[in-house]
Parts: sequence; structure tokens; C-alpha cells
Amino acid sequence: MRAMRSLLFEIADAVHEAVRSTEGAFEDAEVGMGADGTPTAKIDRVAEDAVFKVLAAKGNPLNVLSEEREFQDFKRAETLVLDPIDGTANAVSRIPFYSVSLAVGVRDLDNVRYGLVRNLASGETFYAAKGKGAYRDGERIKVRDFRLDRAQFLVYLGNRAARHAHGMAAMPRRTRSLGSTALETCIVAAGGADLHAVVMGAATGGLRVVDIAAASLILREAGGELYDDRGQRFNMPFDIRVRRNMLAVGDPRVLEAFK
Amino acid sequence: MRAMRSLLFEIADAVHEAVRSTEGAFEDAEVGMGADGTPTAKIDRVAEDAVFKVLAAKGNPLNVLSEEREFQDFKRAETLVLDPIDGTANAVSRIPFYSVSLAVGVRDLDNVRYGLVRNLASGETFYAAKGKGAYRDGERIKVRDFRLDRAQFLVYLGNRAARHAHGMAAMPRRTRSLGSTALETCIVAAGGADLHAVVMGAATGGLRVVDIAAASLILREAGGELYDDRGQRFNMPFDIRVRRNMLAVGDPRVLEAFK
Repeated sequence: MRAMRSLLFEIADAVHEAVRSTEGAFEDAEVGMGADGTPTAKIDRVAEDAVFKVLAAKGNPLNVLSEEREFQDFKRAETLVLDPIDGTANAVSRIPFYSVSLAVGVRDLDNVRYGLVRNLASGETFYAAKGKGAYRDGERIKVRDFRLDRAQFLVYLGNRAARHAHGMAAMPRRTRSLGSTALETCIVAAGGADLHAVVMGAATGGLRVVDIAAASLILREAGGELYDDRGQRFNMPFDIRVRRNMLAVGDPRVLEAFK
Repeated sequence: MRAMRSLLFEIADAVHEAVRSTEGAFEDAEVGMGADGTPTAKIDRVAEDAVFKVLAAKGNPLNVLSEEREFQDFKRAETLVLDPIDGTANAVSRIPFYSVSLAVGVRDLDNVRYGLVRNLASGETFYAAKGKGAYRDGERIKVRDFRLDRAQFLVYLGNRAARHAHGMAAMPRRTRSLGSTALETCIVAAGGADLHAVVMGAATGGLRVVDIAAASLILREAGGELYDDRGQRFNMPFDIRVRRNMLAVGDPRVLEAFK
């Protein structure tokens, strides 16, 4: 549906513009804690407000599941699963790697029909519609074959990462930890890395559906797959309280590296 | 000296333009090995050629120590210490975080008088002249005070990193591994992180003077300091064969975290 694609790009443009117009004003912004314990900042609120403004102007055609607000039930068939800023800490630190993530579907990740992730520092945009392939700035993207000699892993680290995650960071020739799961999963989708892992300890629990809803469709449409930490195909309900660990891979042969 | 500042910005512009005009053509470029065992790619050559072209047009006012060529001795008083692309693997992977690094001085890091690092994906430019402070896009930058509750470390990882580096990645609330030492050190200089560490095993040995010559001045002019892995003040001769481990910090109190 061209209409849904247009709507998602319009929302991304509005977020991009809102964030750009306040650039540099985020460093001193107080970083608080969201309902789910994730740090939030002024930039998240600015971005989220921009999304709701576009939707309201169109009569709220989608329900909205977002990071900071209660589920917005407009009695529509489909839900927008929204992370207004994925990589808030990067934005606040002026590390130019943070994104807006927009997905449309029903119920769970298996029923996401559209996904869009835009890097708000560079403007680069990843997009997929179910069954129609994945694109970066209009060009088709595909995962790459795993080869040990050029292995590159993107791994969530720091003191909430599981010991296993730190082990993964020591395996390949190159490891990056970039701070935006949505974008890191899209880099795997585009063949720029072999794996993105978010594996936390039981107390802190993993990523949220808003972080991965768009990127999971983009990765699958590019030929990749996602797994939970038991090796099962990854899925999550549209529920902000759920957290789950995840391995996103381009070529499943990368998983052999862990055996 | 305004003249030297102008020359460095002119070189950065030339590199930026050369890299931008060939954007997207790097993914398929064969990545080989430089004289010192570091991977090189077409983008490095394109960037380096742009630098030499600007210098030649001005009668080669500086000797040049670069990543890929022999030392270019034009019998000048000062040397340009050049990394045409710091973060080649990122550029090839289309991770938007790679830079050109330009430093001018004599003999060793202690005698660098000017330093410029430009993020070639975003255009953001860090600059310092000795004794004159450090700047990002014309605005004065300063390191931040270390506070454990917002600690963010930037750590070089992968299978060439020392075990100690992987330990560091597990310590703070937030860890990033971004793939460009020059830029990561500048982020510490600008108060976006508390530490950047490059600690490799004895066999692979650490970073090269071209990676850190510009950023070391920028960090010191912003109020930070660099240490070697024995805790001594960091220095390196202008010699491409030397490799050394490094901790770059904003506030030395961060080092207490390791005790």
C-alpha cells in the first residue's frame, strides 16, 4: 500500500525535522527514567510529539504503542509500534548514531507489515513492506554470506550485558557496539555486519518490542533471521512490558561460530 | 597561525569531497593489507591522493607521515601526520563513523602544534591549536567530570583486543565500540564519554601515531589526558612502525574505577 509507505515517510520526516531544529539542545537536558526503566530525555519527547501531531492531523488512523505513553487505542485495525528515538544516550552524547523506528501491524512481530528505520544523524532510511523486500534509501539491500576472515559482530555491551555477550565481543576480527539496536539490525540487513546481539542478564532482561519491530521485518525481508536466546525463531507480542534477548543474523552459519 | 588552520581545513574539505563523490563505491572495493598489516581499501587511496594533491599545489610545505606511503621528506621544518581514513572498515561496511585525521608538528606527540579530525559521514570537525583550546564546529569543547552513574566507555574490541579491554567493556553502564580511535578520542574531549581505550595483546600491539596524533592534542586542549598501559603520560614518536596501547580519559578519576 503506497498510502502506508507515504504515511511512514511523512512521520519520519516530521521527527527528523523536529530533532534537527532542536539540535545541540539535548546535552543539558535532564535524562530521566521511562515507565519501563529506560533513560529518556527531552529528545524522546520532542520526537514523540512530532509523531502524534502527524497522526492527529490524519484522524489517528493507527493505534500507537510507544515507549513513554500508555497504549493509545483509537479502535483501528492496526497499530503503530513506535520508538521515537532508539539511541537516546548517543543523541545526548552527540554520537551521531540514533534513529526513529516505525512499524505497522497487529499483535506481534510476525504480523508486522511495514517497517521504517531512519538514522536521524545521517538521514539514511531503511524500509520494508512484507513480501516486497528491504531497501536503504531506495536501493534493495541483502544480507551477506558469513565468512570468518571478515567477521564483524555488533554486540550490546556495558554492565547490563550478559557474560555471554562479552564473550561474543571477543570472537570476531571486528566488534562494534553502536548503541541503537534498530540501526544495528539494519546494518546486518544491508550486509555490513554478520550479527547483532542483545543479550542481557535475567535482572535487566533484554530489548523491547518498540526497539525491534521495524528492524525485524527489514532484516527478514533482506534474507536474515532473528533468534531468541534458546535458539528459537524470535517473536514478541506488542506489549511494552515484555523484554527479550535476541540474536539477529544475516547468514545462520554465523551461529556455528558459537559451538 | 591562521595560515596553518586554513591549510588543514582546506585539506579536510578536499578529502571530504573526494570521499563523497565516490560514495557507495567502496563496498565492493578489495580490502588489502597495508605495509603495517592494517586493512586498506580504495577509500584510503582516494583520500590520501586528495591530501597530496592539495599539498603539491602549495609546493609541499610539510613533510608527510602517512599510513600507506614511505615518509615523504620535503626538507620542511614540520611534518603532517596523516591518517587519510581512520575507520576504513566502517566506511566499507557503511557504518557512518569514519574520519580523516591531520596533525602538524615535529618528532613526537608532545610536539604536535595543530590537530584536526573530521567525521567524513557527518562533516563534524574537531580542531585544536596548542595552547588555544579545542573546538567542535567552532564551539569550544571541554571534557566532563567522571560520574559512575552516567559512565560511558569507548573501548576497542574484537579478537585482537586484550582480555583487559573486554573487562573494561563490562564495567560501566554504557559501553560503545565505534571503530575510529581519532573520533572516539574527540568524543571524550567533547564530554560525550569518559574514556577511550585501545588495549591489544602483545602480538598485535596497539595503535599507530597516525591514529592519535591529532586527537591527542584535541583531548589535551579540552582538559583531558592520555596514558600508556603502564600508567605513564602517553607519547609516541613520528614513526609508523611503532604501536602502543593507550587510555584516553577526560577526568583522571575514571582510572580509580580500575583499582
